[in-house]
Amino acid sequence: MMKKVLIGLLCGAAVLTAGILIGHYGIEKSSSSTASWVKDVAKDVDEKMVEEFLSEVDNSHIQENLRELTKVPHMATTAGDEQTVQLMLKRWQDPESGLDQAWREEYLVYLSFPDPNRPNKVTVVNASNHTLHTVREKEKAYTSDQNDPAVVQPYAAYSPAGHPQGKLVYANYGRVGDYKLLNQTLDLRGTIAITRYGGAGRAAKAINAAPYGVIGVLVYTDPWDINDGLTSDTNETYPHSWYMPPSGVERGSFNSHYGDLLTPYFAAKEDTYRIPVENITGIPPIPIQPIGFEDAYILICELDGAAAPQAWQGSFNCTYNLGGPGFRPTSAFINSDVKLDIFNYEEVKNSSNVMGVIRGSVEPDRYVIYGNHRDSWVHGAIDPSSGTSVMLELTRVLGKRVKQGKWRPRRSIIFGSWGAEEFGLIGSAEYTEQYFTKLSERTVAYINVDISVFANASLRASGMPSLQNVIFTAAKQVKAPEQDSMSVYDKWIQYSNRTSPVYGPIPWMGYLTGAGSDYAPFLHHLGITSVDLSYTYDRTKTNARIYPAYHTAYDTYDYASRFIDPGFYTHQAVARTAGSILVRLADSLVLPLNCSDYAESLEDYLDLALRLYEEELLAKNISMEPLKRAVASFRSAATHLDEVIGNSDLANETPLKVRMINDQLMLLDRAFLNPLAFPNKYGYRHVIWASSDTGVRTFPGLSDACSRAMSSGKPNAWAKVRYHVSVVSQAVEGAAHMLLDVV
Amino acid sequence: MMKKVLIGLLCGAAVLTAGILIGHYGIEKSSSSTASWVKDVAKDVDEKMVEEFLSEVDNSHIQENLRELTKVPHMATTAGDEQTVQLMLKRWQDPESGLDQAWREEYLVYLSFPDPNRPNKVTVVNASNHTLHTVREKEKAYTSDQNDPAVVQPYAAYSPAGHPQGKLVYANYGRVGDYKLLNQTLDLRGTIAITRYGGAGRAAKAINAAPYGVIGVLVYTDPWDINDGLTSDTNETYPHSWYMPPSGVERGSFNSHYGDLLTPYFAAKEDTYRIPVENITGIPPIPIQPIGFEDAYILICELDGAAAPQAWQGSFNCTYNLGGPGFRPTSAFINSDVKLDIFNYEEVKNSSNVMGVIRGSVEPDRYVIYGNHRDSWVHGAIDPSSGTSVMLELTRVLGKRVKQGKWRPRRSIIFGSWGAEEFGLIGSAEYTEQYFTKLSERTVAYINVDISVFANASLRASGMPSLQNVIFTAAKQVKAPEQDSMSVYDKWIQYSNRTSPVYGPIPWMGYLTGAGSDYAPFLHHLGITSVDLSYTYDRTKTNARIYPAYHTAYDTYDYASRFIDPGFYTHQAVARTAGSILVRLADSLVLPLNCSDYAESLEDYLDLALRLYEEELLAKNISMEPLKRAVASFRSAATHLDEVIGNSDLANETPLKVRMINDQLMLLDRAFLNPLAFPNKYGYRHVIWASSDTGVRTFPGLSDACSRAMSSGKPNAWAKVRYHVSVVSQAVEGAAHMLLDVV
Repeated sequence: MMKKVLIGLLCGAAVLTAGILIGHYGIEKSSSSTASWVKDVAKDVDEKMVEEFLSEVDNSHIQENLRELTKVPHMATTAGDEQTVQLMLKRWQDPESGLDQAWREEYLVYLSFPDPNRPNKVTVVNASNHTLHTVREKEKAYTSDQNDPAVVQPYAAYSPAGHPQGKLVYANYGRVGDYKLLNQTLDLRGTIAITRYGGAGRAAKAINAAPYGVIGVLVYTDPWDINDGLTSDTNETYPHSWYMPPSGVERGSFNSHYGDLLTPYFAAKEDTYRIPVENITGIPPIPIQPIGFEDAYILICELDGAAAPQAWQGSFNCTYNLGGPGFRPTSAFINSDVKLDIFNYEEVKNSSNVMGVIRGSVEPDRYVIYGNHRDSWVHGAIDPSSGTSVMLELTRVLGKRVKQGKWRPRRSIIFGSWGAEEFGLIGSAEYTEQYFTKLSERTVAYINVDISVFANASLRASGMPSLQNVIFTAAKQVKAPEQDSMSVYDKWIQYSNRTSPVYGPIPWMGYLTGAGSDYAPFLHHLGITSVDLSYTYDRTKTNARIYPAYHTAYDTYDYASRFIDPGFYTHQAVARTAGSILVRLADSLVLPLNCSDYAESLEDYLDLALRLYEEELLAKNISMEPLKRAVASFRSAATHLDEVIGNSDLANETPLKVRMINDQLMLLDRAFLNPLAFPNKYGYRHVIWASSDTGVRTFPGLSDACSRAMSSGKPNAWAKVRYHVSVVSQAVEGAAHMLLDVV
Repeated sequence: MMKKVLIGLLCGAAVLTAGILIGHYGIEKSSSSTASWVKDVAKDVDEKMVEEFLSEVDNSHIQENLRELTKVPHMATTAGDEQTVQLMLKRWQDPESGLDQAWREEYLVYLSFPDPNRPNKVTVVNASNHTLHTVREKEKAYTSDQNDPAVVQPYAAYSPAGHPQGKLVYANYGRVGDYKLLNQTLDLRGTIAITRYGGAGRAAKAINAAPYGVIGVLVYTDPWDINDGLTSDTNETYPHSWYMPPSGVERGSFNSHYGDLLTPYFAAKEDTYRIPVENITGIPPIPIQPIGFEDAYILICELDGAAAPQAWQGSFNCTYNLGGPGFRPTSAFINSDVKLDIFNYEEVKNSSNVMGVIRGSVEPDRYVIYGNHRDSWVHGAIDPSSGTSVMLELTRVLGKRVKQGKWRPRRSIIFGSWGAEEFGLIGSAEYTEQYFTKLSERTVAYINVDISVFANASLRASGMPSLQNVIFTAAKQVKAPEQDSMSVYDKWIQYSNRTSPVYGPIPWMGYLTGAGSDYAPFLHHLGITSVDLSYTYDRTKTNARIYPAYHTAYDTYDYASRFIDPGFYTHQAVARTAGSILVRLADSLVLPLNCSDYAESLEDYLDLALRLYEEELLAKNISMEPLKRAVASFRSAATHLDEVIGNSDLANETPLKVRMINDQLMLLDRAFLNPLAFPNKYGYRHVIWASSDTGVRTFPGLSDACSRAMSSGKPNAWAKVRYHVSVVSQAVEGAAHMLLDVV
């Protein structure tokens, strides 16, 4: 009986154990309905997904996008522009490969156009008012593209209308120093200055001229600066190569600011307050007109006066003289004036951004923004459609995965196709002004891919140093175009590199200190961590300041597909690199932003500032110690945060701890904003990356203030130096506080 | 046998079932190590804990705190101030009832003091330079407190030193209009003006005078404005009542800005850039000195000239004349001047904040900040020690729970004991300047309890409307002082109420539009949701502009305990109300910030703006439609977010969803910031609550611009109106975007 009881008990125990095991492991706890999201919130980037996604990004699709986008010229607010709006909307609303949502946003912005009925004219007129020469009005046609009636004829946007007539002088790049030098031997009052592109901003060439009494300005592209000296379209320039033909003219916005000129710091809506037109600053006070080098040659080579300095000489087969003012006595143009007839007019027009989103699954209130402008000057194959083609290919591949339910990013991705960038980053600026707080508080990073392929030698990336690491990861993952074994990273480091004290030799990443494309409002106004990506030149092969068809009627599909990227493999490499960065920023559990790399850049800035200024500042009793302390604080805070990240098992921590760290990383750049630091520079609030007149790679406000104080020697100029030491020190200290333990 | 088998099977089944049940419910799943935090992150405020905590907040402890804090005068940066620093540190570092951490933070700030060796003097001197009368230098002693050698003698901080002498005139409150009226009949050049406190800011009384040639100003408190007309210290005033004795003098900062005057927008550290002293604005350009009404009586009642207007008359038993300028021919002061000998000096001194924190358990990177200043003018029993006593009691009770391991808030709580508030909110302003981004990005709310008890009639709360609901919840929970059944809420609604379109009759909550205490830098500079709390007067019983011992040597423990709050039950009620608000903000799962209540205030603002300005603006072709649309957008966004909150089971959602909603609520106020909206007002960036010259309860920039445009009629003044319509519309639209779905 005992035995039976024992067996019974044993059996009972076994059954109980089985029951316990079944109960414990076999049945999902109902309370773990909550647990369903526990796994989701801890998910990290899926490397397999990234690989698959990148492999689907395809050169031929990009090529087709480009063909479609460049069918007609699409200058901002024209019918061609509207066609591209419709194209973007169609693609992004596609039920198979579109985004979750896409829509347009409109702004009423102040633009400047030539009058189609009264074309701008530049002539040489003699004393008896006979026209001896008329500058070509349209660029020469080599394909049907140039004959499209929608091609806007060359003009300088925001140049005032007017009819100045005077003797010609040659003013090199039209820099402050150029006019100053010219003025030493010539009376510039009443003259017309001819200048070449480069060396100074477009508007500056006229702004710098006016104080000397110059009444009109011409600007052209010297073959020296763009064509490696080549000039002949019979065998040297496009359509034989990528070089600019003699009649090619770079159009452009002659506007030193960015954003709509009438509505600074406001979104330009119908009822928005507009400043009086006469209060606009930073645009030409006198008429200015761009011309081709074939005409510039005719004008410059006839000039009288002393020979210009060696550095002012270009590629023409003549000596560049300064001008009598005016032409040589031996010239057919003897005693003649140059006359500008400029009929530009300004108009407030409706410009559209096209926006699209993929909703984030875990952190929908964190945005990764990817953008490019949509408007061009003419067909804009390279600028900007090379970037738009890449963006459309990325949205196609990602959109398809979303529509198929195979993937949804952790964070929201916002795509922006900006309008009216060419006139001054207007669409992106208005967008950031309209959604200022929302974007500031939620945006992880902004990725800009405008001209995606300048040339096919090497990746170029400029941006905040915290992004360096994720850019490197992406660049290592993608094969270089037409390379069997080398990665984008390998080619990059080969063309452009530096030695980091931490990493040794690494590719050289640029800083985004200007406002060359739509990253500017995100970075300079909102303090959002930004990167600008493209493929670029082999500088051992060309000195062109930019690809030679830039802003001309030759920037066409024909040009792009024959001379810039036949086969579109470089476009594909850029798309894959940008795509990898995008998905990593959107999907990583811990944001791939490295604050220690930021520290390294601040240390570089500091080193240079000390070398350039410390001695002089000490003599003025201005200490740079606060700045040294601040940079040291930042470094140690960054090291600390990196340790916290390294020592944490974040996949098993509360998602709020991960979010805390991510917010520290995301908001780091916001601490560098100071809306009062640069009262005269529109929209520049980031005290590390603001533009600088000196162009030195150090703290911009400090550098500009030092340069002014050293040249003027005035006490209040030295006070400004002192002020900027505090601006930067306190900003860097504030940024360090963001990285330290939160309490 | 079958039966046995059946029984066996049944037993087996029962045992198995038991096993399954044990296994399922009885044993924690090991995989739910992750799940350990799942419960923590979903925890809401614990009402039982709140009740217990409030019951521990105790009047006698508050009374003892006050006794301790008011032993000696503790003007900023004096030895007495340092004693209070030590006291705060000792309490907050107490191992039994202290905080997690406490420390001091120092700033070098620009202060102004009288010279102890050369007391300021005000005299009446006749033509032969004989002194006919000398104004009392020290307030009369009724207790030993007034005899403390550390009592600072009456002076006007930031008044320049100087020795103006001239004929006396009476200028009422020293407002712009007062001097204007006076100037209609009198030549004010070279005169001394006597003014009374009230009606205008302290500094304004001198700033407004100088343009008319006035060379010195006296200021006193008229018994009409503070004592309900009573004047005699034999039986009417302190020590017989709360009223100001005849020799009482209100000290104060004669400074229109806030924050350290030499380091605007910077933390005032040793190396910080300081503006030149001559660039300081907003302080008296001519000497000014406060005096008691016993001396003001002697001066005013001897004045010659026409009788002042009825509204200028005060409580003295004589007619207030304007002055000849100077005294009556029948007066002993005939032909006499009034002379000021002011020896104030400025000094950069080291001022301390004392900081303390309780680390948050779930969201340590979210801060609820609770603060009050520590410095007083003299003993400062009411201002500020009534608030400090309350803060110390809250930290004692909360600290004890933390030290005992019984409680830790969800979010971090930061306590601030600010220095040098009396000179212009300096400690708090420097703190917000030093930690600008960190505090902006992480602070849920700022609670200010400065003077906690002005009087014991009713709660007074001013702040952002989003806090109304949690303040009401707290006020309903706390018993009114010395009331058996009424709550703080009941008493409040009885004394001061309004009818809300949503809630019907509710207590009246004020708006924080000025810079009366340390909430200003948090609210106006950083845009942090703020509230200022105190207990206040029954206005049917007194017209005193403030409690009569304010800033005098009579604001002592004796005064507070005998006349303001015998038994300290009112202090206790304020402490409990503030404590309940604090814990709710720190512990609630969803932040108790109500955006629909904000919408109601914006609608009130809009209604008034439309009534006051729309017709006139339409005549100037300025549309208020954008503002109407913006307020409507805000209302609908708020309704939407409230629905999202109402329809969500947030306790079972991912904590990131809760955080998303909380961030929308927390950051709402940041969208109202515009650092460029008020270029002439230091630190005012919040376009809804900024101070306004008109004082009308509507959008301050718009209201001021309208008032200026209507009075000047100039086109650029109307342009400013247009500008401010855009400023406000776009800010409100931006705030609405914060409340809408994030994508």
